[in-house]
Amino acid sequence: MSSLALCPSPEPAKPLSVFVAGVGTVGGALLRQIAGLGGGALRLVGACSRRRSVVDFDGLDAAAPGLQPVPPDWPALVNRLAAHAAGTPTVFVDATGAPEIADLVEGLLASGVSVVTPSKLANTRSQGSYDRLRQLSASGAVHYRYETTAGAGLPVVRTIEDLVATGDHVRSVRGVLSGTMTYLFGQIEKGAPFSTAARWAHEQGYSEPDVRDDLSGEDVARKLLILARSAGLRVERSDVEVESLVPDEAKHVPVTLVAEALAAADAAWAERAAEAERAGQRLRYVAELRAEGDGARLSVGARAVPAESPLGRLSEADNLVEIATDRYAVSPLVVQGPGAGAEVTAAGVLADVLAVARAVR
Amino acid sequence: MSSLALCPSPEPAKPLSVFVAGVGTVGGALLRQIAGLGGGALRLVGACSRRRSVVDFDGLDAAAPGLQPVPPDWPALVNRLAAHAAGTPTVFVDATGAPEIADLVEGLLASGVSVVTPSKLANTRSQGSYDRLRQLSASGAVHYRYETTAGAGLPVVRTIEDLVATGDHVRSVRGVLSGTMTYLFGQIEKGAPFSTAARWAHEQGYSEPDVRDDLSGEDVARKLLILARSAGLRVERSDVEVESLVPDEAKHVPVTLVAEALAAADAAWAERAAEAERAGQRLRYVAELRAEGDGARLSVGARAVPAESPLGRLSEADNLVEIATDRYAVSPLVVQGPGAGAEVTAAGVLADVLAVARAVR
Repeated sequence: MSSLALCPSPEPAKPLSVFVAGVGTVGGALLRQIAGLGGGALRLVGACSRRRSVVDFDGLDAAAPGLQPVPPDWPALVNRLAAHAAGTPTVFVDATGAPEIADLVEGLLASGVSVVTPSKLANTRSQGSYDRLRQLSASGAVHYRYETTAGAGLPVVRTIEDLVATGDHVRSVRGVLSGTMTYLFGQIEKGAPFSTAARWAHEQGYSEPDVRDDLSGEDVARKLLILARSAGLRVERSDVEVESLVPDEAKHVPVTLVAEALAAADAAWAERAAEAERAGQRLRYVAELRAEGDGARLSVGARAVPAESPLGRLSEADNLVEIATDRYAVSPLVVQGPGAGAEVTAAGVLADVLAVARAVR
Repeated sequence: MSSLALCPSPEPAKPLSVFVAGVGTVGGALLRQIAGLGGGALRLVGACSRRRSVVDFDGLDAAAPGLQPVPPDWPALVNRLAAHAAGTPTVFVDATGAPEIADLVEGLLASGVSVVTPSKLANTRSQGSYDRLRQLSASGAVHYRYETTAGAGLPVVRTIEDLVATGDHVRSVRGVLSGTMTYLFGQIEKGAPFSTAARWAHEQGYSEPDVRDDLSGEDVARKLLILARSAGLRVERSDVEVESLVPDEAKHVPVTLVAEALAAADAAWAERAAEAERAGQRLRYVAELRAEGDGARLSVGARAVPAESPLGRLSEADNLVEIATDRYAVSPLVVQGPGAGAEVTAAGVLADVLAVARAVR
């Protein structure tokens, strides 16, 4: 091969500047994982919580970034990141879940800052808003990645995106997208009353602080909406039919009284679970997208599935997603595993950040 | 957000030049899929079979590239691609499975041409050879992708690579990496003699032209070797313990006499399958990597697994891979689905090519 024209050695790759907003469970795990990476691919240039912040474009120690008791000044911070991004590839990680931070995503992308987020907020507003985010990242100047918004570290979003990008057509997506719900129905199967199982889910750390945020189905509906949009469908949140598991009696009580109020539904759930069992079935909280003509039918709710099916056999707090397409028509493509948890979610975020680093080097 | 410094619009993205070597089942499907993409991300600049070829850097119609009855002149072709790559991002797709084309991979990467391949050859030579390929692609100037070498279109290789890149540690990888073998044992379960099931696998198009290439376990051993190296292990092909299903009687006969010669093993397989069934188990051809200290134990062979386990329930010609890591310790991450077939393999190759296009734009 000595006759080959050898290309010149590339310049040493510039590290990607990383700002992490939110240093709670996921953001904190992410900082530890970045610290553990070593190497020169990433440089932490800032981090913040609601009340504390730090910025240093020369680089910070991710293991101990040294947040100061100064709340982040968002307009100033966004301007500084945009100015920095003009000379150095920069990514903003939104690990806050706060709507006011999700509001910044479009402006960050427009000003040259890539964005990675595990938050479902920015992606589940109007289709028009989603289109603008996609358009900004399609330009190639910036990258916008959100693999962990459905299935945490499981490769679901990018798998669907790759199928569509290569010309395949999604016929259906079906699965359990909430580990909390798998746990809940698993306990009900074993004889626990609905309200007790919900309390345990909270005590085990599986549920949101207000368990109604899980039981309402809103979280799963948003995940399904993101998968539908990743599949190229133009759909709004209002297109998703949602069965809420919050009984009327628990809808308007203070959070401290929720556990008690949920008991109003105990008898009904015990009966539904027993009925399913008599039919060789199990209850699962199933999200389903089914293509119909140019559009799709999207639904989220408790369904009785065969006990011996992959969904029926789901245990722990696992997620499972079955993707059927024109190419995967006989057998679907299936991804299964823990779909939540700080470590696996942070790892999925970090994989997105590293993909940005590779793409901009 | 009007105060933001807007970054200048990026230059219109240059299309990635694509050369496709091999226009058989996978390469042919790939060309059709590229033709179906439309858009300006890719430009086909050449294609070849063993006896015919065409090159046109102004671009070809992927639906009808117009191969001429001129065999490819490899040294000249590699030089032309290298010269072209100096000005335009270029990727070489090896869809031939031919050792002499796999020999070109290192030189192509060294001369600035990215490589995407579904062939296991280049990746399963010595660890030193693999290291050089990885080193060339780690420079960032070129990209080397081989997602489809294990599991075809299923997201297995990159999932393992992402886990390792984000600091996770693979404890075990276990699964069925051969749809042919799933089909074979499925038929034996239903009462077919081993040799008949092997003949059917061939007739259904599941097996290689010489079914011994599947039954030897060599294909699965190479897939496991690639997954092990993707997990960061330094291992040689000789480190993989392989149980071959080719009986001594069939080892040295001409290909036309193989089906008959396999019958020597019919009684033994009927007995093994019956024994498994009596124990509530099923036979599957299982590939397994188990981390041990700094190294790992790698094995490939027929194993009796519980009939009701995910592996035992595998049907059709599906693959299934369970990945356990430090982070996925309680429940593994599981990917399942058709792990072979021209359309899904070509789509996986195309996804790799599109990833290169995104990375170099």
